[in-house]
Amino acid sequence: MSTGPALLTDRYELTMVAAALADGTADRDCVFEVFARRLPHGRRYGVVAGTSRLLEELPRFRFSDEDLATLRDQGLTDARLLDWLAAFSFSGDVDGYAEGEFFFPGSPVLTVRAPFAEGVLLETLILSVLNHDSAIASAAARMVAAACERPCIEMGSRRTHEQAAVAAARAAHLVGFGSTSNLEAGRRYGVPTTGTSAHAFTLLHDDEASAFRAQLAALGVGTTLLVDTYDVDQGIRTAIEVAGPELGAIRLDSGDLPTLATHARQLLDELGATNTRIIVTSDLDEYAIAGLMAAPVDGYGVGTSLVTGSGAPTAGMVYKLVERDGVPVVKRSEGKNSVGGRKHAVRRHSADGTATAEVICSGPVTPEDGDRQLVVELVRGGRVCEPASPREALVAARAHHERVRATLPQEAWALSRGDCAIETVTA
Amino acid sequence: MSTGPALLTDRYELTMVAAALADGTADRDCVFEVFARRLPHGRRYGVVAGTSRLLEELPRFRFSDEDLATLRDQGLTDARLLDWLAAFSFSGDVDGYAEGEFFFPGSPVLTVRAPFAEGVLLETLILSVLNHDSAIASAAARMVAAACERPCIEMGSRRTHEQAAVAAARAAHLVGFGSTSNLEAGRRYGVPTTGTSAHAFTLLHDDEASAFRAQLAALGVGTTLLVDTYDVDQGIRTAIEVAGPELGAIRLDSGDLPTLATHARQLLDELGATNTRIIVTSDLDEYAIAGLMAAPVDGYGVGTSLVTGSGAPTAGMVYKLVERDGVPVVKRSEGKNSVGGRKHAVRRHSADGTATAEVICSGPVTPEDGDRQLVVELVRGGRVCEPASPREALVAARAHHERVRATLPQEAWALSRGDCAIETVTA
Repeated sequence: MSTGPALLTDRYELTMVAAALADGTADRDCVFEVFARRLPHGRRYGVVAGTSRLLEELPRFRFSDEDLATLRDQGLTDARLLDWLAAFSFSGDVDGYAEGEFFFPGSPVLTVRAPFAEGVLLETLILSVLNHDSAIASAAARMVAAACERPCIEMGSRRTHEQAAVAAARAAHLVGFGSTSNLEAGRRYGVPTTGTSAHAFTLLHDDEASAFRAQLAALGVGTTLLVDTYDVDQGIRTAIEVAGPELGAIRLDSGDLPTLATHARQLLDELGATNTRIIVTSDLDEYAIAGLMAAPVDGYGVGTSLVTGSGAPTAGMVYKLVERDGVPVVKRSEGKNSVGGRKHAVRRHSADGTATAEVICSGPVTPEDGDRQLVVELVRGGRVCEPASPREALVAARAHHERVRATLPQEAWALSRGDCAIETVTA
Repeated sequence: MSTGPALLTDRYELTMVAAALADGTADRDCVFEVFARRLPHGRRYGVVAGTSRLLEELPRFRFSDEDLATLRDQGLTDARLLDWLAAFSFSGDVDGYAEGEFFFPGSPVLTVRAPFAEGVLLETLILSVLNHDSAIASAAARMVAAACERPCIEMGSRRTHEQAAVAAARAAHLVGFGSTSNLEAGRRYGVPTTGTSAHAFTLLHDDEASAFRAQLAALGVGTTLLVDTYDVDQGIRTAIEVAGPELGAIRLDSGDLPTLATHARQLLDELGATNTRIIVTSDLDEYAIAGLMAAPVDGYGVGTSLVTGSGAPTAGMVYKLVERDGVPVVKRSEGKNSVGGRKHAVRRHSADGTATAEVICSGPVTPEDGDRQLVVELVRGGRVCEPASPREALVAARAHHERVRATLPQEAWALSRGDCAIETVTA
C-alpha cells in the first residue's frame, strides 16, 4: 500500500512539473485559487468542508521510494522530475475560509501561494477533498435547516464509497447532524455513533416479539424498535407490549411517512407510550424532511440523499492559477466572469448582524462597520498554522458553522431554487 | 490508523450481532442477497463492479485490538460481542455475478450464506463497494457505447472523494475506458495513466508558444497541446508552428465542441497536421459524447459526469435476508415484488446468441439451449475461490465485460430512457 496521499493525483500535474523544471519556470511564484463559479440547482449557499482533512494530509504528501518506483513503471522516467519529487515537501502558504464557513459564487475558499511546481502538485488532492466534503456539507446543511431543531442521523455509508462514507459522516456532523451510523467516523473524528437494528434482525427471529425481546435485552428499553417489518400497527402494539411504555423510540422505514407517523403517534399515546419517540427513515431528503414538519416526528435518519449531495454530488470547485510573479493571469474563456490576481474577501453585514454581501476584491477591501474577514491563515512556509487533532478540528469547524449560520438572512433557508442568499460583490 | 476495513461498518450491524449472540440466534444459517430493485432513470442495464475489491478486503475484515478499543469507547461494551468480534473471521460462502457482468432489476448479484452474525456484519462494506463501483461502471459503460470505438479517458479524480476516485478509475477501465489520469489507479490496478498539461501551464509562461515549447521538450512531439487558453485559432497555429505537423494531438476544453472540433480539424489539415488528433474534454457525459458522433473527434476525456455516475451516483443495491434455516423470509412491504429464498439466475439467449431474458428462480432453473449460468462461486468456507491480484482481477473483469457486452440486444445501447434491455423473468 502507498503510505501517503501523493499518488492520489492526476498524472498531468507531474508532467507539468517535469516540463516546468526543464524550462526553468518551476520556481515562478504562483497563486492558485479554489472557488466555485456557481452554486448547483439554484441553491442559496454552499458550506466549505474538507479543509482540516486537507491540512491533515499535507505533511504526508511526500513521494516514497515505492511511489517513485511506480511512477517509473508508469513511464514517468524523467530523472529531474523524480529527483525533485523525492525531495518534495510543500513549502508554500495556504489561506482560506474557515472550515464550516458559507461560500458563494467566486468566494476564494482556498488560496495556495507557492512556486508553480509545488502549487500545481496539490491541485488534485485539494479539489477531491474540498469538492466531495463541501458537496455533502452543503446538502446536509439544507437538511438540518429543514429539520429545524429535530435531530438528524447520518446513515448513508452503504450508498457511497467506503472511505467517502467516513468523510460524508464527518461533513454531516460539521453542519449539525447529531450522529452517524459509521463506526470509523466515530473513531477518526469522534462523531457520535448510533444504531439499533434492521429488518433482517426481525426476519431472523421466529416472530416479531422474539426479535424485540432480544433487542431490548441487549440494548435496553431506551432502544429504537423497527416496527414495519410486517404490519405497522401490530408492530407498534407488540413493541409496547414487550418493552412497556418506557420504550425509547420506534422507527418507521416505509410507507407514507406523514400519515404513518401521525397514526403511530396516536397509537403510541393510546398505549400509554407518550414519551416514546418516532424516528423516520426511508429515502429522506431535505424536501421529504420539510414535508414532515407538521408530523409528530422526533428524528430523521438520512442516507442516500445525504451522501450523494442531494442531486449535487460534487461542489464544482476549480483550482485556477490567478497570479504569476505578482502579475494577475486569466484564461480567455473566463475573461468576462473572472478577475485574475489574489483575492481578499469579507462578509458585509447590516446593523443587526445579518449578512448582506460577499465582498471579493483583488486588493485589500476597504473595511466597513460589521465586515468580517473571511480568509484566515492556514499554512505558512509549509507548516500548518494551528495544528489540531482530527477531532479538535471537527469540533472547531462545527462551532464556527453554528456561529455563522445565525448570520445568514432568512431567505437562505428556503429550499426552493432561487438566488444566492447574499450577493457576491467584486470590488 | 485502522489497519483494516472492519470499522467501515454501520453500528447497527454490531448491535444486531450483540443481540443475536445473547438470544442464541446468531448462528442461524442465513442467506443474504444483494440486488437492485430497479435501474435508475430508465437505464437499460447496469454493470456489476466492485466484486474483486470486496474479495480483496474480505480476508482483512478482522477486528484488531485497537478496533475493539474504539468500539468500547463508543459504548459498545458488551463482553460477548467484543469476544466474538476479536475471534471473527468470515467462514461463510459467497456467490455472485462475475465482475463486469450486466445486471437487471432483481438480479442476485451477490449472495452471502453464513451464520447470521457473520453475514450481517459484512452488509455495510459489501453495499458501499458494490453500490459505488457499480454506479460508476454503469454510467461509464453508456459513455463507452456512445463513443463507439473512440477512446475514452477517465479524468474525474478532482470531482469525487480522493479514494473513491481510485475506485472510479478502476470501474471505468473495467467497462472499456482506455486510460485514467489517476496515478494511484495505475499503481494499484495497472490502469494505464495519461496526462499532459492544464491551462495553468500556459498561464505560467510568458506566452503560449513558450509553454508549448516547454511541453514538447519534456514530453515529445506525440504529446497533446491544450490550445484554448487564449484564442483557439491562434493556439492551433502556434501549436503546429512550434511542434510541426507531427504533433500528436490538441485538446479542446471549452466552447461548442462539435463546431469547434470541425473547425479545428479543417485548420489542422490546412496546416498539414492531418494526423494530429483532436481530444475533447469539458463536462462531457454520454449525451455530449453522442452529440459529437459526427464531429472529427479522436478521443473523449470525461470527468465529473463519470465519477458521479451521470445522475445516478449510487446503484441502489440492497442487502436482504432472504432465507433463514432453509426457510424463505420476506418483509411485508416487499411482498409484492420480492420472492424470499436463495436465487438462481441464468441469462437466456436466442439462437443467434442475443440475450433475451434474465431468468431468476428460487430453485434451480430448468436449463434451455443457450442459457448461461450467471452465478459463480466466489468464496467457500471464508476462502476466496480464485485468489487474484488486484491487477489480474481487473483484467479478467474487463475481458468478461467485453465478452458479454456483445450479447446484449441492440436496444440496450440507446441512451434514451426506456425499458430494461432484457426482461427479468421470475420462474
